[in-house]
Amino acid sequence: MPRDLSTFFYPTSVAVIGASRSPQKVGAITLKNIQNSKFKGRIYPVNPNAEEVNSLKCYKSIKNLPETPELAIIAIPAPLVPKILKECADKQINNVIILAAGFKETGSEGGKLENELINIASKHNINLLGPNCLGFINTIHPINATFGATVARKGNLRFISQSGAVAASIFDWCNSIELGISQFVTLGNKAVLNESDFLSHFEKEYQNTSYTPPQEGMSEESPIGMYLESISDGKEFLKTSCRLSKTRPLFILKPGKTKEAAQAMLSHTGALAGEDSVLSAVLEQAGVIQCKTIEDFFDLAKAFSWENVPNGPSIAIISNAGGPAVISADAVLSAGLALSEFNEPTKKVLTKILPRSAGILNPVDILGDALANRYRKASETVMKLNSVNALLVILTPQIMTEIEKTAEFIGELSKQYKKPIFCSFIGGKLIYEGEKVLNKYKIPSFRFPERAIYAISEMWKFKKRKLEASPLKEANYAGELNFEKAEKILRKAINEKQQSLDNISANNLIASIGIPTPPTKFIKDEKEALVFAKENGWPVALKISSPNLLHKKKVGGVATGIANEKQLLETLTKLQTHFEDKIQIQKCVQNGTELLVGVKTDAIFGKVLLFGAGGTYAELFDDKNLCLLPINNLGAKRLMEKSKIYKFLQDAKLEKLQDLIIRLGALAQEFSEISEIEINPVIATLNEVWAVDSKTLLRCG
Amino acid sequence: MPRDLSTFFYPTSVAVIGASRSPQKVGAITLKNIQNSKFKGRIYPVNPNAEEVNSLKCYKSIKNLPETPELAIIAIPAPLVPKILKECADKQINNVIILAAGFKETGSEGGKLENELINIASKHNINLLGPNCLGFINTIHPINATFGATVARKGNLRFISQSGAVAASIFDWCNSIELGISQFVTLGNKAVLNESDFLSHFEKEYQNTSYTPPQEGMSEESPIGMYLESISDGKEFLKTSCRLSKTRPLFILKPGKTKEAAQAMLSHTGALAGEDSVLSAVLEQAGVIQCKTIEDFFDLAKAFSWENVPNGPSIAIISNAGGPAVISADAVLSAGLALSEFNEPTKKVLTKILPRSAGILNPVDILGDALANRYRKASETVMKLNSVNALLVILTPQIMTEIEKTAEFIGELSKQYKKPIFCSFIGGKLIYEGEKVLNKYKIPSFRFPERAIYAISEMWKFKKRKLEASPLKEANYAGELNFEKAEKILRKAINEKQQSLDNISANNLIASIGIPTPPTKFIKDEKEALVFAKENGWPVALKISSPNLLHKKKVGGVATGIANEKQLLETLTKLQTHFEDKIQIQKCVQNGTELLVGVKTDAIFGKVLLFGAGGTYAELFDDKNLCLLPINNLGAKRLMEKSKIYKFLQDAKLEKLQDLIIRLGALAQEFSEISEIEINPVIATLNEVWAVDSKTLLRCG
Repeated sequence: MPRDLSTFFYPTSVAVIGASRSPQKVGAITLKNIQNSKFKGRIYPVNPNAEEVNSLKCYKSIKNLPETPELAIIAIPAPLVPKILKECADKQINNVIILAAGFKETGSEGGKLENELINIASKHNINLLGPNCLGFINTIHPINATFGATVARKGNLRFISQSGAVAASIFDWCNSIELGISQFVTLGNKAVLNESDFLSHFEKEYQNTSYTPPQEGMSEESPIGMYLESISDGKEFLKTSCRLSKTRPLFILKPGKTKEAAQAMLSHTGALAGEDSVLSAVLEQAGVIQCKTIEDFFDLAKAFSWENVPNGPSIAIISNAGGPAVISADAVLSAGLALSEFNEPTKKVLTKILPRSAGILNPVDILGDALANRYRKASETVMKLNSVNALLVILTPQIMTEIEKTAEFIGELSKQYKKPIFCSFIGGKLIYEGEKVLNKYKIPSFRFPERAIYAISEMWKFKKRKLEASPLKEANYAGELNFEKAEKILRKAINEKQQSLDNISANNLIASIGIPTPPTKFIKDEKEALVFAKENGWPVALKISSPNLLHKKKVGGVATGIANEKQLLETLTKLQTHFEDKIQIQKCVQNGTELLVGVKTDAIFGKVLLFGAGGTYAELFDDKNLCLLPINNLGAKRLMEKSKIYKFLQDAKLEKLQDLIIRLGALAQEFSEISEIEINPVIATLNEVWAVDSKTLLRCG
Repeated sequence: MPRDLSTFFYPTSVAVIGASRSPQKVGAITLKNIQNSKFKGRIYPVNPNAEEVNSLKCYKSIKNLPETPELAIIAIPAPLVPKILKECADKQINNVIILAAGFKETGSEGGKLENELINIASKHNINLLGPNCLGFINTIHPINATFGATVARKGNLRFISQSGAVAASIFDWCNSIELGISQFVTLGNKAVLNESDFLSHFEKEYQNTSYTPPQEGMSEESPIGMYLESISDGKEFLKTSCRLSKTRPLFILKPGKTKEAAQAMLSHTGALAGEDSVLSAVLEQAGVIQCKTIEDFFDLAKAFSWENVPNGPSIAIISNAGGPAVISADAVLSAGLALSEFNEPTKKVLTKILPRSAGILNPVDILGDALANRYRKASETVMKLNSVNALLVILTPQIMTEIEKTAEFIGELSKQYKKPIFCSFIGGKLIYEGEKVLNKYKIPSFRFPERAIYAISEMWKFKKRKLEASPLKEANYAGELNFEKAEKILRKAINEKQQSLDNISANNLIASIGIPTPPTKFIKDEKEALVFAKENGWPVALKISSPNLLHKKKVGGVATGIANEKQLLETLTKLQTHFEDKIQIQKCVQNGTELLVGVKTDAIFGKVLLFGAGGTYAELFDDKNLCLLPINNLGAKRLMEKSKIYKFLQDAKLEKLQDLIIRLGALAQEFSEISEIEINPVIATLNEVWAVDSKTLLRCG
């Protein structure tokens, strides 16, 4: 059950433990911030050595407080925190923030200290934020429970930042452009409360619309920005963000790979699917926008906060400079957006209001001598068009350019029309004055038009997801499939304490749920081999089999394309000389595209299906496409379409491949005993799909 | 011979024609700008209706001037310009700037007016800048010959901008960060002077080092930034920039494709190699850095102007925030840079000077409570290391952070150490004060660390090109090859007024210069076909041949894999029924990778060699790689390596393929009659390379 954080965010009384009279101390700053934030509840400074702090009566200890405060902020050094937390628990305080660093992040000693906190919180069911955090801000029910220089302006943005440092940068940036927020939480070490708790809380707030009345000039989007260095509970996070992202823009910045991961990746020794690629696939599935750079994050925050998402992909561009207009037109097209087409009446109006050498097609070049009024008239003309979903206004500061006046006109226009407007005033000092005006009107402006276009394209993608709405049905084959035979095969292997299945068992396992496999069997001698080849037809393949030998091809234990008796006998002799293992014979599948279909287990998100180029193709393409299980028809289709090898599958029977993917996914889901299963290659021929080679790893113990 | 622009840029006397007493007029602003720019020469306003302008004696007309001014600026409306230009010519003025718009850019009428200017300038050998331009600035010999709000600060940057609007943005930006320039030219319509003229002039200035003394805090790089919407003389531009880019950073922003080109590209109907891809390949060959966005352009200008390029790819990162440090470490690795390794003594020092929980590996996390002094000590420690080629300092504005003091310390450090330092202070208002200090010290700072890393990576790429220096040798097969047979084949076709060669002639043409082609011939009947197949072995292919039918495969005129007599006869009958053309028989090449090698003629740059996936692969990969001719061994190798299909060529004989490329390049170069030649497919088998099908287009007339 999700935690109730309503008194956490909307306390009527707050205790600040460690409220100090020295103004530099964390406790003092926090107390001051609460007082300055127009907090309307009761404030209780706690400090054994003071009678009064900041004109407030000070209490010697928590137990002396005249009531149980709804929120306690502990602003004392780490070693003393567990004792104080215990006192909070004894006072039955439900919500606690611990600001101090010096816990898990400092090593094992700190880790022990943090575990004490976790134990107390869990025993008393305390909503504990931190430790090692900056606190939170709520501008709806005004309280600044942080020790940072923060944002006081009201807005529709919600932020969850694991890092206080990144929060500080966001605060400074918000203040510089007058961007308001509604709530800002810094998570710190996430001893108890994590991102999913806050996402759940935000979801509840959205349901209760009275919390977020639309504000002057802002969008109706209520976006949530997240800076996360780790995801605490993958499944919970996925579930919550999946629900939320259907109606609210969620965007995330996550430091990608660690140095080590990145280096591993570079040296090509990394696993098929690194942690990061799973996260990335999961976020995509959950509809969370992934920012590639810090700049992306800042730009999306502003765009989603101040403008409604466009209703379509068609952009009109108005510029007083031809070059940047063309650059922007290119960027619009590359971003998957479109340039609005103007109808004849509009072209006529533009011809009338613009000078003769102006460009009246989109992008509209209103020329270097354009005054504010020309900007206004041109903008108004195109804003009226149904074919225009958003307007991008570009300005370069030329000798006649009326920068501030133009910004004012655009601002006025944005009040009249519901359509989103974005600006790019390109320059420095001069255009800064115009940007200030745009900020006042809450029109997102970007120094470079490509940045505006990036933001618009992400907004449109969000809108498109909303329109497509039709949530993926959870239905899949799991119900219809008969897993009896599969269970027997697995049970036997587990009883024999095998960590992986031998060739034939692996083959039988996938065959048991209806995945087509070429004829195969173990053979004892050349006679059996010959009989098999004659029955099933040439060419055949010979493979050695050993439960614990997973890379038989690498050691020379696989021979394919054996076309006649002579070759068969030679190959068999060779294999028997080099290996002591059992030998498998298989009918060869010829002339097809080699694919890989597999399932891996991710530590955070669970089982993930992998699809891409297989066999020899796997080395040519970096083509690993992931989808969290369960997977249904549409999911399988999308996954195939995402792959690079998809282009090679034009003639293949895609329904059969889709069926194979869903069956394998269902198998992996059904049995927790399977930790990894991989078919490589799956060979897709003109009419058939064959699982030629597979391996299955079992969960130990 | 390159034009001499020394008196153009360094005039001792200037006439301003159209100098007006109304301060809003272009002539008035220009005159004022010259006066305010500390121009030390003589200034002659020309205006028939004034005795004096801005306290300067005014002349009725050009012929009345007391001397021949070295530069004349014409600031009067377009229709009057030709007459005035003629007067300038009569006065023997060598250098003229025409500011007015209203020429070529407005249509055919304006075009005619512009042609008049070109004729006068060419007759009198006038260095004419414009029309439709903003003029130029030179801070070395101070003169601001523009009518814009420009840059007065001295620096090492040179700019060439075709657009005055973009120039205005650059001016504003330069002023806002105190970035100085040495020369800035706006080209306008390029009636006479174009980018190559100015590049040549800059080259001359560089040779005479007295022009550009290194200035306090700036780099020694003397970069040149170009904003160009078109290249006027491709070959000249290529030659000059090739030479310049060996020692100076050249970076360019060019609006990519037009809307139409982009759309054509999107609908997949575009030609194999559009204009833009040729330009891009040419710029790469010339060592010119191509900016993808306006932001790239601004960022590179600052970086190259203020910091020397790093001597190696290893970066040290110091940050007071863990997340941005990790993000930056990832960006460093993805950009092809490296993270410096710290030796043991350094780690020891860092352990000593930093708090216990700080990160002493690279990136160095000096923690959120880092004061300026900790930044200084950590930075100094790593700057001393040989393994550090550049330092990136990241700062988030946390509660204790001493933003300006930190910037001061870094500034001091940059004076002591020759190594380049880059900063990323992330935030808004607060960090702006720090950025101002960094600007004072000429330390490039970027709001987002990824932008700094982009700049560093381009700087390092530039340095690497300089280090690799070894210019590609121009030598190729052209001298050794015997073109006699080729000439005969071409002569015959041209005499017969063919626009393209028939199958066998095209085959013979490439075979004549030693490119391997499979056995082939025209056949009259089934008897001849059978004889051929038996002599050369099955399978064979049949193709119809017609000089003007270039897409025979599309119309069903190609049959491959004919494996026996029966198939041969059937196919032959079918072809003979459907087509009246000659029929070619060819031995099939089996089991290879299909490639395309061709030569096209680009309108601006001349002949360009094309290499990539061919045959059926061409549809799967977008794989067109270009190289301007001539091409040598190394060039061919690089071209192959650049392709996507390269991965499929692991087992192929690359030397043979390289040889084929060079031979085809030499052939195309030798004969101006060949406008286009394409071998598709070239089939690369394990041991051989075969030119299976080729077409040759001849220049008409």
